[in-house]
Amino acid sequence: MSDAPAFALHPDLERDCVPVCDLDLCRVLLMDDANYPWLVLVPMRSDKRDFHDLTRTDQQLLCDEITRCSLAMVELYGPDKMNVAALGNMTPQLHVHVIARWTTDPAWPGPIWGKVPRAAYETTALETRIGELRGALETA
Amino acid sequence: MSDAPAFALHPDLERDCVPVCDLDLCRVLLMDDANYPWLVLVPMRSDKRDFHDLTRTDQQLLCDEITRCSLAMVELYGPDKMNVAALGNMTPQLHVHVIARWTTDPAWPGPIWGKVPRAAYETTALETRIGELRGALETA
Repeated sequence: MSDAPAFALHPDLERDCVPVCDLDLCRVLLMDDANYPWLVLVPMRSDKRDFHDLTRTDQQLLCDEITRCSLAMVELYGPDKMNVAALGNMTPQLHVHVIARWTTDPAWPGPIWGKVPRAAYETTALETRIGELRGALETA
Repeated sequence: MSDAPAFALHPDLERDCVPVCDLDLCRVLLMDDANYPWLVLVPMRSDKRDFHDLTRTDQQLLCDEITRCSLAMVELYGPDKMNVAALGNMTPQLHVHVIARWTTDPAWPGPIWGKVPRAAYETTALETRIGELRGALETA
């Protein structure tokens, strides 16, 4: 029995994202923005805000899962570049963005935040994307 | 003797940053922008562009050095949040931004890129900042 509070996803992430799967450390979410294939990895640990708040063991797990998600997206979508970032200025729960980028995407070569309005997926496109990501991550 | 090309800093980073010190994996640079205490960690490996291009051992070293730089800046400057990001859309050499943020800084709560023009340090301020960061990192 532990006194640590249970992990609960922050309401901002609950609102803006769709669950893909749980890995050993992270809950993997898809940002509901069809402009870019964009995963959000949330370590299932309570009360963590910054990367350096994780233990060294959890940092290694997080690296492994960032790599697994990046390679899944490289394999599925063939992007020109991957972007990886832990910002969290607005949402105070540690989360890592892993985003596939193209030289033809609407924010290139800048970072994606604040460039173009979020474009929610159409239902079928969302189901397809979740299915292919879940398939790639669960078998990786 | 190795056939691998020697590590050389990309000219963009050479132009925009000032060297702080070399850790086991990374050359640590200070971005010459007095708007934020902003370090750039460049793994001293040739031909790496994405985080997932590093070996697992180098990823662990990079995590350790991100944590070391973050904690040094937390200790020195007491920021409200740290931002960590590997973007590299414009500069094709793997580098990780580690940036101290405040709720009062000119880009808060957004990411810093493209918000306000870069403000080069005055000579004395630059020397002070480099000195305190070098001191904190070399003794950590």
